Amino acid sequence: MRIALDALGGDFGATPNVLGAVQAAKEFGYNIILVGNEELIKTELAKAGDYPQDKISVIHAPDTIDMGANPARECRTKKDAGIVVCARLVKEGKADAMISAGNSGATMVAALFGIGRIDGVERPAIASPLPTEKGPAVLMDAGANADCDAVNLLQFALMGSIYSNIAYGVKSPVVGLLSIGEEEGKGNLLIKNTTKYIKRLGLNYFGNIEGRDVHTGMIDVIVCDGFVGNIVLKHAEGLAKSMFNMIKGSLKGHPLAAFGMLIAKSALRSIKDRTDPEVYGGAPLLGVKGPVLICHGKSGQKAIYNSIKAAAKLIENKAVETIEEKIVSYKEIFKKAKEHELG
Amino acid sequence: MRIALDALGGDFGATPNVLGAVQAAKEFGYNIILVGNEELIKTELAKAGDYPQDKISVIHAPDTIDMGANPARECRTKKDAGIVVCARLVKEGKADAMISAGNSGATMVAALFGIGRIDGVERPAIASPLPTEKGPAVLMDAGANADCDAVNLLQFALMGSIYSNIAYGVKSPVVGLLSIGEEEGKGNLLIKNTTKYIKRLGLNYFGNIEGRDVHTGMIDVIVCDGFVGNIVLKHAEGLAKSMFNMIKGSLKGHPLAAFGMLIAKSALRSIKDRTDPEVYGGAPLLGVKGPVLICHGKSGQKAIYNSIKAAAKLIENKAVETIEEKIVSYKEIFKKAKEHELG
Repeated sequence: MRIALDALGGDFGATPNVLGAVQAAKEFGYNIILVGNEELIKTELAKAGDYPQDKISVIHAPDTIDMGANPARECRTKKDAGIVVCARLVKEGKADAMISAGNSGATMVAALFGIGRIDGVERPAIASPLPTEKGPAVLMDAGANADCDAVNLLQFALMGSIYSNIAYGVKSPVVGLLSIGEEEGKGNLLIKNTTKYIKRLGLNYFGNIEGRDVHTGMIDVIVCDGFVGNIVLKHAEGLAKSMFNMIKGSLKGHPLAAFGMLIAKSALRSIKDRTDPEVYGGAPLLGVKGPVLICHGKSGQKAIYNSIKAAAKLIENKAVETIEEKIVSYKEIFKKAKEHELG
Repeated sequence: MRIALDALGGDFGATPNVLGAVQAAKEFGYNIILVGNEELIKTELAKAGDYPQDKISVIHAPDTIDMGANPARECRTKKDAGIVVCARLVKEGKADAMISAGNSGATMVAALFGIGRIDGVERPAIASPLPTEKGPAVLMDAGANADCDAVNLLQFALMGSIYSNIAYGVKSPVVGLLSIGEEEGKGNLLIKNTTKYIKRLGLNYFGNIEGRDVHTGMIDVIVCDGFVGNIVLKHAEGLAKSMFNMIKGSLKGHPLAAFGMLIAKSALRSIKDRTDPEVYGGAPLLGVKGPVLICHGKSGQKAIYNSIKAAAKLIENKAVETIEEKIVSYKEIFKKAKEHELG
């Protein structure tokens, strides 16, 4: 198991990346390839104490991606940036997966163009965990594709279901289409077109769900375009925070205010913990020819360690191969959906 | 001030409608026209005690809308259904506004076809209150239009701003486009097309907002298509409930569990109260030639009473005329946006 890690990616530089890698290498014996400025990485490694030297290698990648610049241009012109080199390693079969806590737009671009899409996958998408009353659900797409067609959504459903099974061990993930109105076919044009074909994909398909059903835990894979998905993801985060602030305001001066705040904080945590990137690791970009994990910029050692574990799970369980197989076996349905949509 | 009320609309039949009407007529001296089965209405009126008889009139409308059936067909074939008659009264100048807690799809259809759109308004939309840390924001469109173009969104922004001013007294409402990414033009194709023209509408335009900004209170009018709007509205409701359930679970067995649950309940209420239909009354369908308020099916007397107050506010402040004026004065911009979108 060889995992390429963008060792300087993220808001905290090399430290959490190197420490997370060392921890995972020690514990599981994975081969971690640290990609980035060699000097900085080696300085961190020297501080990391004992580690299995044969399990950790370093590849020098001196270029740095400018966060404010256009990700596509950055990746094209900076051949020796950490994420670009990580993607190349996967492409050339020298690594089995890649992980980055750097610029997520650039990571996506590097993966898409450096590794490439799985044959038949039109648009790779980000699968993000969403907190529910019964554990995390998979939200797919969480923001990679702002404009989608029915084929995209059908493929998101398929890939999300495979991921829910591998990452969370759900045997037959319940798949729901996020829409307005529960009746079949209710929603916008995109939902209507998707509904015509989704039942033929051999999924445990529930039907339409509404915004209010997202966090109940009755659905394992919530399918929507990346515009809606990203709004829902950030809306959950924002609402939890605002509720916390409102409670704080209403408790002011209350004799048991301190205890009340503890409860309120636990309420906020109940949401945050269930999707904590430190626990769940990065969100995968599904649909490219190799496991790619996009981590939060604020990932600490634990997040990187957990992302390495998550990447290993995807490799071991042949996530890419399974997606490839399913996409091929339903290609006639995607073709029909595309023809239908084009009128 | 003459307000037509669909007196049998809603889950509780005539009682809350008649009581709410009597309360408003007594308190403000509005003329309320109760529309529906005359016998049932008169039975309720007889129970309502003293009321100003010259302020309450009854119009017999015996047809009933079948909730499960197609709203458009129902409204077309049942000329003597309560909402159809209400719309006719507004159309014929015999009422200044209409209110219904009945089937909201049918209310929309009755208003659209019975009263008609304001000249130049392409798609009337529902303005719903959303709870924020600083009072309610206006969400526009909350679900009337699942598929929208840029002209629709531009008009939603304009109408939502006028409504925020009239209904909540916000002097210069801050208008935000709900999108993914805060930078100008970031989002899907619809947002990109809308962004090109929205600055020319003379609004207090903030720019893009993200899902996390919805409840902070920094934005007074949140503009999106009805698909996204309805998902956000129901998502807020569902997340608040799920958080409550998660807190409940985590408090089990805690010595201060009872107090904790009080706090948790107040947290849930903090969200619910701020959009309580009982307090805010119905949500208006903006863009038709007469104030139309769509109430929650579970509206009680207080909700109906408050909706009557809200309708009066829209009449007094000439909401329809103001929308008409603004739509006319920006018609060149709508034309350009339409041409641009059609390529």
